Amino acid sequence: MPPISLTTDFGLQDWYVGALRGAILTVNPRAVIVDLTHGIPPGGIQAGAFALAAAYRSFPPHTIHVAVVDPGVGSSRLPLVVQTRHYWFIGPDNGVLSWALLDEEILSVRSIDNPKFMNHPVSRTFHGRDIFGPAAAHLSLGKSAASLGRKLDAWVSLKWPAPRCEPDRALGEIIYSDRFGNLITNIPESSVRHLVPATLRVPIKNRRRSLPIVESYSSVSEGKPMALIGSSQLLELAVNGGSAAERLGLGPGHPVEVRRKQPG
Amino acid sequence: MPPISLTTDFGLQDWYVGALRGAILTVNPRAVIVDLTHGIPPGGIQAGAFALAAAYRSFPPHTIHVAVVDPGVGSSRLPLVVQTRHYWFIGPDNGVLSWALLDEEILSVRSIDNPKFMNHPVSRTFHGRDIFGPAAAHLSLGKSAASLGRKLDAWVSLKWPAPRCEPDRALGEIIYSDRFGNLITNIPESSVRHLVPATLRVPIKNRRRSLPIVESYSSVSEGKPMALIGSSQLLELAVNGGSAAERLGLGPGHPVEVRRKQPG
Amino acid sequence: MPPISLTTDFGLQDWYVGALRGAILTVNPRAVIVDLTHGIPPGGIQAGAFALAAAYRSFPPHTIHVAVVDPGVGSSRLPLVVQTRHYWFIGPDNGVLSWALLDEEILSVRSIDNPKFMNHPVSRTFHGRDIFGPAAAHLSLGKSAASLGRKLDAWVSLKWPAPRCEPDRALGEIIYSDRFGNLITNIPESSVRHLVPATLRVPIKNRRRSLPIVESYSSVSEGKPMALIGSSQLLELAVNGGSAAERLGLGPGHPVEVRRKQPG
Repeated sequence: MPPISLTTDFGLQDWYVGALRGAILTVNPRAVIVDLTHGIPPGGIQAGAFALAAAYRSFPPHTIHVAVVDPGVGSSRLPLVVQTRHYWFIGPDNGVLSWALLDEEILSVRSIDNPKFMNHPVSRTFHGRDIFGPAAAHLSLGKSAASLGRKLDAWVSLKWPAPRCEPDRALGEIIYSDRFGNLITNIPESSVRHLVPATLRVPIKNRRRSLPIVESYSSVSEGKPMALIGSSQLLELAVNGGSAAERLGLGPGHPVEVRRKQPG
Repeated sequence: MPPISLTTDFGLQDWYVGALRGAILTVNPRAVIVDLTHGIPPGGIQAGAFALAAAYRSFPPHTIHVAVVDPGVGSSRLPLVVQTRHYWFIGPDNGVLSWALLDEEILSVRSIDNPKFMNHPVSRTFHGRDIFGPAAAHLSLGKSAASLGRKLDAWVSLKWPAPRCEPDRALGEIIYSDRFGNLITNIPESSVRHLVPATLRVPIKNRRRSLPIVESYSSVSEGKPMALIGSSQLLELAVNGGSAAERLGLGPGHPVEVRRKQPG
Repeated sequence: MPPISLTTDFGLQDWYVGALRGAILTVNPRAVIVDLTHGIPPGGIQAGAFALAAAYRSFPPHTIHVAVVDPGVGSSRLPLVVQTRHYWFIGPDNGVLSWALLDEEILSVRSIDNPKFMNHPVSRTFHGRDIFGPAAAHLSLGKSAASLGRKLDAWVSLKWPAPRCEPDRALGEIIYSDRFGNLITNIPESSVRHLVPATLRVPIKNRRRSLPIVESYSSVSEGKPMALIGSSQLLELAVNGGSAAERLGLGPGHPVEVRRKQPG
């Protein structure tokens, strides 16, 4: 039975995640429910899209990934179920699934509109419990996607903030600051490979600071900043034993540049 | 095998929830353990009672709901196991179970006093690990409630803060502020149905502010406050794409009034 | 199948715990994954060691305890798998496992160096996902420890901050402050038994304050501080219905003394 992963902005202080889990178990008492994260900031569609894109591949094939970051719940935005070659994705049609879909071969996209597979009465504020969770549970029991609803030809895609690549440099930005204060950029490993040996340059208070691009945190001495390829194959700024966000005073949106090291 | 849901004020930074889960698995290695929430404020018996009441029905029949908000642990307050027509409830006799029991048909209430079903030595500070968790695990294995302890005739019930309903209005209060800043009141859908079309009025700094009662968050424009029936069938104050708690500066205890709209 | 417990400093706002869980399920789709805690402060090796030592015994025999607090990830520190008479322990060789091992009969300590049991490509920053989680999953499937890697003769042990015991007193310190503001000391029950009846003395702002050592929180009136044997069999400072950390203004590192009560 494929596991069901959950990515939401519900947080853990209220009962919302509990009710979502309960709704899944009500449909499939043997469901394997795995939290991806519930720590997405309220309404943070891009943060949710990024977390899902960063982690979905760590799950076994056929995992049913449910992502509920849904500020438009109760409006006319559709609930989606997407089948790709390797996974299922379920969530609102607001882009939260779209970054994970960038690298996937999409087999079908459907709206979830069959009331038979919903929890009634369907609230206007909690489709995680009433639509998305039950849909995932029915899929995990082997119900077909076709039974959930009709095929769609179009859906919402968030623009991925692609870096600008030039022969001698790559220009990007910080897109995520994690709990350790690591600053993840939008520059993938593949965009810097041809620039090696390279340094990362980042403007800080009218100065341009250079950080070495290294192999691992411990390649620099404790407390020192660096850049390295992180676990999502993206370049990130870090501090050995510390927080780059705090030490450098930077956050999402800040520009960075990777430049081929000048000989000499 | 019925799942075991957990509602506690343990938080997630320490090892207490881990030890509780481990104690359950020690008795029943195949137990299905589901967190309802561990984010109840320390000693927040009413918040725990409300979370449990709001979410317990989302779980499958026969779920064993364990709620441990237990500032009196180690005193003479009894540990309870309650069987209702549809669920089991386990927790201290301090009222934390009582709001969930309001709508349930109670079949029996017992104290857990059989040492055979406890984890020894029983600590004076952690009955979640030593009494409540093991009792739930034994129930999930099919042990009878009668084997856990003797029947009780009385137990602690928290007073539910019922709204005052009049022909032309309903008077209530905010009872919960969630992670999104939604402000949940004690006014149920059934108490406002006869007042429709209605508005919600709330005193803010010597002024009385009127909010429209709408169908969903997106019924008002972004950033605007409103009231609507939330996922627990209670009226709540919300802001489309924002936090009502922040925007209105309100929290639990604040009075609200629903009034029939004056024609014209 | 033995459960896999997880203790990390990953926190719950990012996708790291989700990716770790996914990596385990990718190897063993039927793995029983149980969070011990993910709330260890970033890089807090001692806090992780303490949480694991406090809770590992609450889990069933043969549980596979994975602890990833790993500021040296990517350096030359080895990944370990330890078999004791009752449990398995997996984590980096930086001492995070060592306090749990103090009371265990160690059967073997090995480095995890067989690439066959890793997730590829192995990142330089996320060995939880790429090495520790997969190793735990393979063990849970019945793979032998010997297949994971070679035996080691030495590993890193953190010094346990043992209290100083004298005939009439025990001198120790606060080592952990929990979510309730309980202040756990390094003084075990066994070190104070011979001093009963005793009081706890703690210097606060040039004064020496005496607290009664009692049986349970409710042995003193609400709002009053006390000391008692907590759920980890260590002496802790607490306040009935409140936070000792806040009320007394104390935290880890602060000295405490248990002294036999003077007659009269």
